[in-house]
Amino acid sequence: MAPVYKVHYFDIHGRAEPIRWLLTYGNLKYEDVRYSSEDWAKFKPSTPLGQMPCLEVDGKIINQSTPICRYLGKIVGLGGKDEWENLLIDVAVENLGDLHKKIMEMAFEGDAAKKKTMEEDLVKKDLPFFLGKFDETAKKNGGYFALNRLTWADFMFTCAYETYKNVITPDVWSKYPNLLKVKDNVLKIQTLQDWIKKRPANKMFSKFDLKEEL
Amino acid sequence: MAPVYKVHYFDIHGRAEPIRWLLTYGNLKYEDVRYSSEDWAKFKPSTPLGQMPCLEVDGKIINQSTPICRYLGKIVGLGGKDEWENLLIDVAVENLGDLHKKIMEMAFEGDAAKKKTMEEDLVKKDLPFFLGKFDETAKKNGGYFALNRLTWADFMFTCAYETYKNVITPDVWSKYPNLLKVKDNVLKIQTLQDWIKKRPANKMFSKFDLKEEL
Ligand SMILES: N[C@@H](CCC(=O)N[C@@H](CS)C(=O)NCC(=O)O)C(=O)O
Ligand SMILES: N[C@@H](CCC(=O)N[C@@H](CS)C(=O)NCC(=O)O)C(=O)O
Repeated sequence: MAPVYKVHYFDIHGRAEPIRWLLTYGNLKYEDVRYSSEDWAKFKPSTPLGQMPCLEVDGKIINQSTPICRYLGKIVGLGGKDEWENLLIDVAVENLGDLHKKIMEMAFEGDAAKKKTMEEDLVKKDLPFFLGKFDETAKKNGGYFALNRLTWADFMFTCAYETYKNVITPDVWSKYPNLLKVKDNVLKIQTLQDWIKKRPANKMFSKFDLKEEL
Repeated sequence: MAPVYKVHYFDIHGRAEPIRWLLTYGNLKYEDVRYSSEDWAKFKPSTPLGQMPCLEVDGKIINQSTPICRYLGKIVGLGGKDEWENLLIDVAVENLGDLHKKIMEMAFEGDAAKKKTMEEDLVKKDLPFFLGKFDETAKKNGGYFALNRLTWADFMFTCAYETYKNVITPDVWSKYPNLLKVKDNVLKIQTLQDWIKKRPANKMFSKFDLKEEL
């Protein structure tokens, strides 16, 4: 029997969105459970570490977004063909994670003046450095983020791209044509297009939604 | 022919130590290259993202410590037997990573007063929460960190344990007997004992070295 999947998260894209995409891509039926803060307070103690997203598989609740994506990536055929390829996927995702941390620290900085300086620094230093490196890799890979074909790392990048377009003011992307190809290659997938058109609006960031680029 | 491995890192334990342990455990010969800051400045541009540790495999230089450990873990027979088990290992390692981030933020805080408050907070809140959860899992697993047998997650935990004993002042460990078992199970391994006795002293933290517990 097919496993029963549930995705537990807030009513936002965030860390759950690549999980939802992987399930969608694999035609794996799942329940998309979305918590208000009140409901979350009740559910929180039932999660392994008091945090979401969680993937529930036949009643077993698993936390940690990246491991969940790696697992589903393999299940839906978007993993590597051997451990060396899996390593290259994992490295690409972790490199993106190092940039992500910096960007989200800026995005959630409460002090407006400090946030502005952090954004300027990012736009001057970290973004050109990281995105430049990622763009080089994507070029070498013919428009894919980790290997020279579609993997779950492309989903991670494209979800991150949507977030970055929400939280970074200047449009930096035209400098990275190969990263735009990664995103385009992902957005070509029909089942993902269908999902992006019908999914609930992001309650966290509303400046930009990928459906504008379909 | 056996691959030629090199580990590139500073002359400290840090993020490279579980990589060195996995190679040692698997009897995989490697060159343990250790950089002074001057030599690092020269080598830095040759690394994928300007950071170490890097694992060099037959001339290809790979960064990101956790993906490298996952890769080597599988190669030396310390991975899961299927993707579900790999998921459980990855989740355990990522949960540890979430705690690690908090502990290292405290350890590297420059302002002494702020650092003291951060440590008090950790000792009061995060440590009991995370270590309590990890201890429960280790109990269920009979003294292992992720599955009910030795995996690369046990190496990650034991290396982290050494770091935490260096940077956290109070001895919190007696409250977590099952985590101490994880560490003991790892330190039982003869090749690791040999390595721990002969490895270069940690230039970063010198308060505690695992060899005291062999
Ligand atoms: N490392 C975890 C982090 C999870 C996390 O930070 N979750 C946040 C939302 S994105 C959360 O659950 N916050 C609510 C809470 O802590 O109560 C992952 O990647 O899944
Ligand atoms: N996410 C990376 C982080 C690597 C990292 O932070 N490396 C530090 C040392 S632990 C480094 O290379 N610092 C020197 C520099 O950036 O020049 C990993 O886990 O490998």
